[in-house]
Amino acid sequence: MKQGCLIVVSGPSGTGKGTVCASLLAAHPEIAYSISATTRQPRDGEHNGVNYYFLEKPAFERMIADGELLEWAEVYGHYYGTPLRPIQEKLADGQDILLEIDTQGALKVQKKCPDGIFIFLLPPSLTELERRIRGRGTEDEKDLARRLAAAQKEIDVAHRYRYAVVNDKVDTAVAKIAAILTAEHCRMEANRQLLTEIAGTKEKR
Amino acid sequence: MKQGCLIVVSGPSGTGKGTVCASLLAAHPEIAYSISATTRQPRDGEHNGVNYYFLEKPAFERMIADGELLEWAEVYGHYYGTPLRPIQEKLADGQDILLEIDTQGALKVQKKCPDGIFIFLLPPSLTELERRIRGRGTEDEKDLARRLAAAQKEIDVAHRYRYAVVNDKVDTAVAKIAAILTAEHCRMEANRQLLTEIAGTKEKR
Repeated sequence: MKQGCLIVVSGPSGTGKGTVCASLLAAHPEIAYSISATTRQPRDGEHNGVNYYFLEKPAFERMIADGELLEWAEVYGHYYGTPLRPIQEKLADGQDILLEIDTQGALKVQKKCPDGIFIFLLPPSLTELERRIRGRGTEDEKDLARRLAAAQKEIDVAHRYRYAVVNDKVDTAVAKIAAILTAEHCRMEANRQLLTEIAGTKEKR
Repeated sequence: MKQGCLIVVSGPSGTGKGTVCASLLAAHPEIAYSISATTRQPRDGEHNGVNYYFLEKPAFERMIADGELLEWAEVYGHYYGTPLRPIQEKLADGQDILLEIDTQGALKVQKKCPDGIFIFLLPPSLTELERRIRGRGTEDEKDLARRLAAAQKEIDVAHRYRYAVVNDKVDTAVAKIAAILTAEHCRMEANRQLLTEIAGTKEKR
C-alpha cells in the first residue's frame, strides 16, 4: 500500500489560505482534511468534527501530555492544535491529507514531519495583502500595520518550505497545488515498490 | 529573468517516449524541443533542423572536440548527440526545453546538468512492454529477448531519476509530466527572486 502525502498549506494571514484550501478540497474530494482541535466555543454554524474538534481544557491538556498533538499553541487563552492520530491513519491508508495552518504551526509540523509537502502561499504583493486585509473591514490602522510587518517577517522564513505558490487567482493557485501533489506522487522515492513490481512482472507470469 | 527548466524524458525502448513527448509538445507549445545532431542520412520525410541536425562526420567530430555536445554516442557507425548551445540559450531565455533520450544518454546528461528534471517513463509491466515491442512487428525472438533483458536492467537504474511516470495511457502520462513541470516551477529554489520582490513591494511604493 502506497503511503499518502501530508500537504501543508501555510502563509501569512490575508493570503487566502482558507479560500484556496476550501476550493482545493471541493475540486479534489479524494483529499482528506486535517480538522484542528480547540478549546474555544463553537461559533454559529460551526460543528464539532467538521470545523473543529471542540474540547474542554482538561481533555486538550491530556492530549498535549500524551503526545497526541502534532503541534499546538495557546492564543488569547484558548488552545488550538493538530491531532496526530487521524493524520497517521489517513496517510497509512494511502490517503492524502491537507493541513491548513499558520506559519508558526507549519514550522513545528516540519520538525516532526520533514517529508510533508510544505507549500507557502504568497500574496501577489504586500500592497495587495494590505488591500485584502482592509477588505475584511475588521482592522484598525495599528492592527493593520502590525499584520503587514508580521507578513513581511513570515515571508522571510518562506525559504524553509519546499514550494511557493502565489495566490493571484484562486483557481490558478488551486491548480498549482494539485499539480504539486501529482508531481509528489511521481517522485522516485514514492515509487520504489512500483519499480520492483514492474521489473519483476516477467518472472511472475 | 527566471531560468527555464530542462525536462529529460527517458526510459527503456518500447515505453512510448516518442509518442508521449510528441503529445506533450502538441499540448504545450510553450515547451521547446531539443533537436539531436546525427551523421546518419535523413530518412524520407525527415528534415534538417526539425527531426535532427544532419551533419557530416568531420563537423560532428569538431563539435565533440569543442565540447559543444551535452552527450554523444556512436551507434552502428553513426554519431548521435545533443547540441549544448540551443539548450543553454532557451534556458537562459526562461524557456522550458524537453530532451527525449535513451537511458545511457540521460545518465551522461545528469552528470553535466544535475538540476534537470529527470523523468523515467515506465511501461505498465514487462509483459506489456513485450506486447508493445512485438506490435511494432520488426523484431525476431532473439532480438526481443535482448531488448527485454536490457529494459529490466534499465529499470534497475531508474532510482537515479527524480520522477517515475507509468505510460499506461498517453494522456495520463502527458498530464503527469505537465504537472511535474508546474510543480518544479513552484519549487522554492526557483522563486527566491519572487520572494524578495514580494517582501519588498511595500517599500517600493
